[in-house]
Amino acid sequence: MLLQQLREEVLEANLELVKRGLVLYTFGNASGVDRVQGLVVIKPSGVDYDDLRPEHMVVTDLHGTVVEGTLRPSSDLDTHTLLYREFPTIGAVVHTHSEYATSFAQAGLSIPPLGTTHADYFYGAIPCTDPLPDEAIGERYVHETGLAIVRCFRGQRSSPTVRSQAQGEADMETASVIAAGGNSARPERAEPIDPLAIPACLVAGHAPFVWGRTAKQAAHHAVVLEAVARMAFRTLTLRAEAKEVSQALLDRHYFRKHGSKATYGQNT
Amino acid sequence: MLLQQLREEVLEANLELVKRGLVLYTFGNASGVDRVQGLVVIKPSGVDYDDLRPEHMVVTDLHGTVVEGTLRPSSDLDTHTLLYREFPTIGAVVHTHSEYATSFAQAGLSIPPLGTTHADYFYGAIPCTDPLPDEAIGERYVHETGLAIVRCFRGQRSSPTVRSQAQGEADMETASVIAAGGNSARPERAEPIDPLAIPACLVAGHAPFVWGRTAKQAAHHAVVLEAVARMAFRTLTLRAEAKEVSQALLDRHYFRKHGSKATYGQNT
Amino acid sequence: MLLQQLREEVLEANLELVKRGLVLYTFGNASGVDRVQGLVVIKPSGVDYDDLRPEHMVVTDLHGTVVEGTLRPSSDLDTHTLLYREFPTIGAVVHTHSEYATSFAQAGLSIPPLGTTHADYFYGAIPCTDPLPDEAIGERYVHETGLAIVRCFRGQRSSPTVRSQAQGEADMETASVIAAGGNSARPERAEPIDPLAIPACLVAGHAPFVWGRTAKQAAHHAVVLEAVARMAFRTLTLRAEAKEVSQALLDRHYFRKHGSKATYGQNT
Amino acid sequence: MLLQQLREEVLEANLELVKRGLVLYTFGNASGVDRVQGLVVIKPSGVDYDDLRPEHMVVTDLHGTVVEGTLRPSSDLDTHTLLYREFPTIGAVVHTHSEYATSFAQAGLSIPPLGTTHADYFYGAIPCTDPLPDEAIGERYVHETGLAIVRCFRGQRSSPTVRSQAQGEADMETASVIAAGGNSARPERAEPIDPLAIPACLVAGHAPFVWGRTAKQAAHHAVVLEAVARMAFRTLTLRAEAKEVSQALLDRHYFRKHGSKATYGQNT
Repeated sequence: MLLQQLREEVLEANLELVKRGLVLYTFGNASGVDRVQGLVVIKPSGVDYDDLRPEHMVVTDLHGTVVEGTLRPSSDLDTHTLLYREFPTIGAVVHTHSEYATSFAQAGLSIPPLGTTHADYFYGAIPCTDPLPDEAIGERYVHETGLAIVRCFRGQRSSPTVRSQAQGEADMETASVIAAGGNSARPERAEPIDPLAIPACLVAGHAPFVWGRTAKQAAHHAVVLEAVARMAFRTLTLRAEAKEVSQALLDRHYFRKHGSKATYGQNT
Repeated sequence: MLLQQLREEVLEANLELVKRGLVLYTFGNASGVDRVQGLVVIKPSGVDYDDLRPEHMVVTDLHGTVVEGTLRPSSDLDTHTLLYREFPTIGAVVHTHSEYATSFAQAGLSIPPLGTTHADYFYGAIPCTDPLPDEAIGERYVHETGLAIVRCFRGQRSSPTVRSQAQGEADMETASVIAAGGNSARPERAEPIDPLAIPACLVAGHAPFVWGRTAKQAAHHAVVLEAVARMAFRTLTLRAEAKEVSQALLDRHYFRKHGSKATYGQNT
Repeated sequence: MLLQQLREEVLEANLELVKRGLVLYTFGNASGVDRVQGLVVIKPSGVDYDDLRPEHMVVTDLHGTVVEGTLRPSSDLDTHTLLYREFPTIGAVVHTHSEYATSFAQAGLSIPPLGTTHADYFYGAIPCTDPLPDEAIGERYVHETGLAIVRCFRGQRSSPTVRSQAQGEADMETASVIAAGGNSARPERAEPIDPLAIPACLVAGHAPFVWGRTAKQAAHHAVVLEAVARMAFRTLTLRAEAKEVSQALLDRHYFRKHGSKATYGQNT
Repeated sequence: MLLQQLREEVLEANLELVKRGLVLYTFGNASGVDRVQGLVVIKPSGVDYDDLRPEHMVVTDLHGTVVEGTLRPSSDLDTHTLLYREFPTIGAVVHTHSEYATSFAQAGLSIPPLGTTHADYFYGAIPCTDPLPDEAIGERYVHETGLAIVRCFRGQRSSPTVRSQAQGEADMETASVIAAGGNSARPERAEPIDPLAIPACLVAGHAPFVWGRTAKQAAHHAVVLEAVARMAFRTLTLRAEAKEVSQALLDRHYFRKHGSKATYGQNT
């Protein structure tokens, strides 16, 4: 296995989270996937960042079975691997308890697109999952956390200033998720979201998961998410009824940095 | 007396509080207890942190009588010693005026468990004491501060989003505390709390006291408490009616890091 | 062309924004104008600040045609050049997404003059533009952003605590701006503002643009704007109906630092 | 004149304000008084802190006439000298635009004693002056600023959670101040305050002035004031009706650190 570069990129992403003030002590973790080999490289659990070296990274398959490494992988591993299986275009996942994004998650609120900083990176509201029902908080809790994220992207509600309440999907792999929508006779459906168009999700009562094509990009998205959350917090404190940017502005800024017509930065 | 290691640990905990931005000037103090010898090691009062050395730590018995050291002990000594006498499982106490936790204390509000960061460390709301009645603010004020904390843990109210109003206990050692519940004909009772399950308490109108099995752990808890308070402040600002996490999620996260079935970190 | 000094000043201003914590990653840009030659020096787009050197600065004419430099200029160039054409007394423009000023922009709120820190630099409310109508968010979006700013200064409303709603001006160069005031039968008119008297504007849903006589001064204004925004945010959170300073106090402080009777600082 | 030590102390106090993050650029100033000689040492106006040396300090008499130094003194000089004349027990004055204290000043709100951190330093609410009437904002504006402070201490209102509205005093030296209370038929009177018991005042729409027995103590008070303001801001955001500490607790904490029975720190 030639995963040395991926190990280094994953370590680098973990350290970027520390450098940018997104993690306290050992909170937070980053991983990356090698799609060709079907292998995931992830930070070990509860190791001081100062001591982390590339060889400490744990390698697992896409179902979380350790194939290399003597340390125990991050306790959030099953969320990472589920996201890799369900979102085939992503290359890396980052999880932090960065404080403003986590405050939105604790409030059960998605982050509406209130300005162009948001629109430059996230093509719409950053959704917040439903709270996990009790049935989902058992042996497979970490896996269920991933399912709650996936549900958001398969049919998210459109209103970003109230708590997202994406309903369970009948074709999801775990029955317990059905319960989440149980008190709603007719689940409301919404358009699915491309995970690369909105590369982050808030898990209600928990914290954000963020992703990207590479580990570097996923960490970058996590840093920007926190800045966007800080500004959304202050905007909403100043004016609870602050309006989202128009679809035209969202399009303009998002496609300024993404897609074949991007004009930002240098051609390299 | 072989307290050299404890002196160093206590000094280290004091310095960790400074490093993490929890103390301004000489505010704050940490202590540790040697249960075998029945001795307490505590920071001296009002000495610059830059100048602190292990030999400056003051040694007292469990009733606060100095047995070693020429400096005056922290003015909060009597709270520390009372906590050691009443909570026999704790090994260290930390007191800071860390700003967000203190803001909750000043508001007379306990910190509800709004997310998994909280649940990873505190198995329920972090209680806030009743304000001390005038009778308790005399010669034995510092001792009475400790009693107010102890009352919270002997029978705390369950509602964490309103100010805790734990009633006086007839079997408490000081009569003045009875007065605190005087205007309530029938004191409401609540379940006692294990001090190691919720290793912190907010003293109304004052600031937090935090503890742990070791000085290092107590300081770690103080740092996490402040992060939890920051996020609770922002969550409640975003949404005053934000909900506590479910009991299932509280159990899942707390026991992930505590007890015989803990899965976080490495087996060492 | 002898623009070496201007290149260095513009680079210095860009770095000052980083040093003061106003920019994250490559967000933000500064430019300066040589009025004699009619040339603009501006930061290139999306280049790491650590790597920026004077020779990376891009030189354009007043209509944004690159006349020197191999890198692509900042994507906000057309806003900068429009401001230079419309505000002939200014010598430099700075654009950041500094977080508190941006939060006001996202809320669509101008910043009222609540204290003397504001009055020392800004002779009245710092206006917020109208949101750009969809018609303005096309090919000429960046140019239209500049027009929205210019409209604020040609006839700003006087009420600084509600969203600025300056109406379209019939003599403006682009028809689309008329649409902005379309739902108001009788556009309210206000006094024009001297851009040097209030050297900043918030673009609704976006972020601030700031200017000055020199690049150093423009960056200084951007830093002060952010401090003023932080204090206005907290003032309005404490007391939503906080009052603006009196005209007398505004005069006293503004003219203390500006004009022929200035008394602040040393005579140099 | 042997003012070398005072020059150094005043410079040191100015630098402490920078180090603690209380001043931006050249905002803020500190001075000290030599009571025997009747001389004031003050920071020059608008000089970079990096360049300040003891010999740059300006020396004036108690009415602000420069007696030594070539630089122009701080533009707030007349406030400093008035405070020295009116408050004979103080030895130094500090003025900053520290952001949280300034936010209370901008809101026209005094800072109520919400906790023991406050009570350890300020024996009651930190008052906020009335806004200066237009008549006071002329040639003698800086002097009038000092008068507004003095009025607060001659007869402050007791309610600390609403804006202080201390009335003009007939025996004050300037007629304009009478106007401030003009719309109140029967000025409410309150107890005078010992300036050393509450060593700070917020000037409405402006910022705090702080003092102490020495320049070092005045700077220390300014730093603590800002921390107290931060916590009061958050406390009031969490709970607008948060209660002040009891008189008993105020007494207990204040006299713990002040007066002949102080028990805090080491006997030195």
